Amino acid sequence: MMNLLYLPELREMLAENDHQGLLEFCTALHPARTAEFMEALTAEEVWNVLRHADTQLASEIFAYFEHQFQVEIIESRDPAEVAEMIACMSADDRVDLLSGVDEERVSAILSLLPLEERRDFHRLANYPEGTAGAIMTTEVAQLAENLTVRQALEEIMRQAENLETIYYIYVTDDNDRLHGVVSTRQLVSSLGKPDRKLAELMEPEVIHAQVSEDQEQVLRKMADYDLLAIPVVDDTLQLVGIITHDDILDVVLEEAEEDAYRAAAVEPLEESYLQTPILTLSWKRGVWLTILFVGALFTVMTLSHFQGELNKYAWLVPFIPLVISTGGNTGNQSATLIIMALNKGDVSVRDWFTVIRREVLMGLILGSLLCVFGFGIAIMEAPSLWAAMVVPITVIAVVLAGTLVGSMLPLLFKSLSLDPALMSNPFVAGIIDLVGILIYMSVTILLLGE
Amino acid sequence: MMNLLYLPELREMLAENDHQGLLEFCTALHPARTAEFMEALTAEEVWNVLRHADTQLASEIFAYFEHQFQVEIIESRDPAEVAEMIACMSADDRVDLLSGVDEERVSAILSLLPLEERRDFHRLANYPEGTAGAIMTTEVAQLAENLTVRQALEEIMRQAENLETIYYIYVTDDNDRLHGVVSTRQLVSSLGKPDRKLAELMEPEVIHAQVSEDQEQVLRKMADYDLLAIPVVDDTLQLVGIITHDDILDVVLEEAEEDAYRAAAVEPLEESYLQTPILTLSWKRGVWLTILFVGALFTVMTLSHFQGELNKYAWLVPFIPLVISTGGNTGNQSATLIIMALNKGDVSVRDWFTVIRREVLMGLILGSLLCVFGFGIAIMEAPSLWAAMVVPITVIAVVLAGTLVGSMLPLLFKSLSLDPALMSNPFVAGIIDLVGILIYMSVTILLLGE
Repeated sequence: MMNLLYLPELREMLAENDHQGLLEFCTALHPARTAEFMEALTAEEVWNVLRHADTQLASEIFAYFEHQFQVEIIESRDPAEVAEMIACMSADDRVDLLSGVDEERVSAILSLLPLEERRDFHRLANYPEGTAGAIMTTEVAQLAENLTVRQALEEIMRQAENLETIYYIYVTDDNDRLHGVVSTRQLVSSLGKPDRKLAELMEPEVIHAQVSEDQEQVLRKMADYDLLAIPVVDDTLQLVGIITHDDILDVVLEEAEEDAYRAAAVEPLEESYLQTPILTLSWKRGVWLTILFVGALFTVMTLSHFQGELNKYAWLVPFIPLVISTGGNTGNQSATLIIMALNKGDVSVRDWFTVIRREVLMGLILGSLLCVFGFGIAIMEAPSLWAAMVVPITVIAVVLAGTLVGSMLPLLFKSLSLDPALMSNPFVAGIIDLVGILIYMSVTILLLGE
Repeated sequence: MMNLLYLPELREMLAENDHQGLLEFCTALHPARTAEFMEALTAEEVWNVLRHADTQLASEIFAYFEHQFQVEIIESRDPAEVAEMIACMSADDRVDLLSGVDEERVSAILSLLPLEERRDFHRLANYPEGTAGAIMTTEVAQLAENLTVRQALEEIMRQAENLETIYYIYVTDDNDRLHGVVSTRQLVSSLGKPDRKLAELMEPEVIHAQVSEDQEQVLRKMADYDLLAIPVVDDTLQLVGIITHDDILDVVLEEAEEDAYRAAAVEPLEESYLQTPILTLSWKRGVWLTILFVGALFTVMTLSHFQGELNKYAWLVPFIPLVISTGGNTGNQSATLIIMALNKGDVSVRDWFTVIRREVLMGLILGSLLCVFGFGIAIMEAPSLWAAMVVPITVIAVVLAGTLVGSMLPLLFKSLSLDPALMSNPFVAGIIDLVGILIYMSVTILLLGE
């Protein structure tokens, strides 16, 4: 939903080049709201508004635009014009932004940044996506352990402007190795004893992340220990960055969204539903639908193969959807339970035997429950009690197949170092459709064939 | 996975009632880890360890146990023994904990708490689950607007021990109405001008939540504005509480988990996969499987009704799973897209016509794509080209039905004030199975019937 409320006034001020009015517009509201009110402007107009604010504020407002729009603004201006604002951004946001901009322009912009920012950029840009290194920022509050509380507060006041967060302050030795942590809260409540050394005050056991650690694991650590931020260290335990609560909240929301899309066999969207063009959306759905459709053709061919049996025992045909959906539903349940347990670290590949034992037991319990209903309907349709037995036996076998296939596929993917979430629900269901049909026809032949 | 590392030493120290050793164990590590090392102990043993730490630390360690285990510990002790520790907990955690304890014991414990804590308890416990009021805590840093920076810092130092967070300080008037916000960061960097008034320093536009607001909306606000905490106000704009980043992170993880379980038709688990007893898990799966199974029996009866056509055009039978799964997959995609867009506020019920138009268009595009493959296989099985046309026409119609039913059901649920996520994937698929069979048989009769 675009906010069009101030649009006429904004355009009028732009036409008159009303510096005072535009400056006031930029400063009056929270930067997130200011950005919202500008969504309907063109990239060029947005830049002409932002020019009137100071660079720090402009970069804050800019940070709230959608990624695609940010890239458009940057690509529409001369590198020299935008470099100052980009220098104001935090190192991690800068890497995110420039990942969408064309390479030549990126190196033109980088050449205008201070040496240290340029180094940070190359360092951060080199960490693979999904690792702690890729979401951390390098602006971390870091103090030597021999400082006093007073010196520490003075130093933090001096640095505060350039830091992502000052709520945790990491204490390091001469080699930048992480030795401890103090919170601003502790510093403030120690103001009564301003000459205590940080080394006395600090908590020496610091929960930290490795640069190469998976972001999902970092998230779990922050949630388990209720952390506002977590320091990131390299192999030599040198402090190299920090991941803050807002970075991790973005990661959680993003991962939950991607998982939900994948579970429904849709390629994750980059924009909102209404803003994604119909053709893009059709493509994101069509790819997977086509794969699943082609997969389902195997089921068609398998059933064709049993045309003789289907003609002979025609009363079995109406049960085909029941057999298929029961297997698919059971399989989805097992796959979801195991994928989530793997994500949370509750289950590992080594537990495969325990998982099989539990799923077989559950398959027998659930199958026995459902086969009663199945038998009830089957005796109304089948020519004999013996023939009706095909349905309940198939139901038990299909439910068992569902729990086994559904639980083992994610473990198999995990042990091959693939993302178990790739075993999306429709895939599991598709595989179990085929298995279910094979079971149904085999039970029919075993029981009724002569 | 339980951590058994220190278990023998712990039991030995308990047997010897080694106060020094147990105190050291409690203080040496982060409370979260200490709690981890105690997981294998009984409720009684845990309490005997915690007795040796001071009450504040004991309550911190206690906070990291699983809810069920916490309840067990509380219920195994005399109310008088645990009241002191419960008084140390934050108001929101206290409400969560006692929600699992039996009522008589709760009133016994409450009668031992200070009057104000008792009032807070009743106030918080009365907000419906899922609202801002239910996840907020009442311990909020609140200062009068005429205080100076120096006075404010002194006041905060005094209060810090009892507050959930001091990173935002809310500035109120004489009637406790929210007027502005200052961050500790601002206070610390204003230490150079200690006589400035809070009223000058504060940001007057405060992003806030209403007590009755949905927690999902609160989460979106905190994520959009990158907030560490959000103040909660009542109808008269009086400040009544605060929601902090860790409360909201718990909410996000919990909601994402519940949505994933529901999407697979499993009742959300309270414990981990391996810790949930097989019978409990079978129940949580069986309820939904049975409902879906009974639903699928309608599809069986519908197909039975068309037994005559199925006998006559036997070559159509193998395509039944294809028709059903294609409709189900398309419906799941649409339902997931709309449920997520509703959650994010990208789409509202008022957009129903735009949604229909988009979904019809996508249905036509996707259906046209898939019907080509369907026709290719159908001509190999069908007695004539004309007869083969049944399959592609059905595919287009079923895909269209999938996009329409899948997108409209969540909107319908939303407009009835029900959670659109109740329209879980297997439900949408189950409904479309039935619709798909009706379409398939109708197209058959229309094209081939004489």
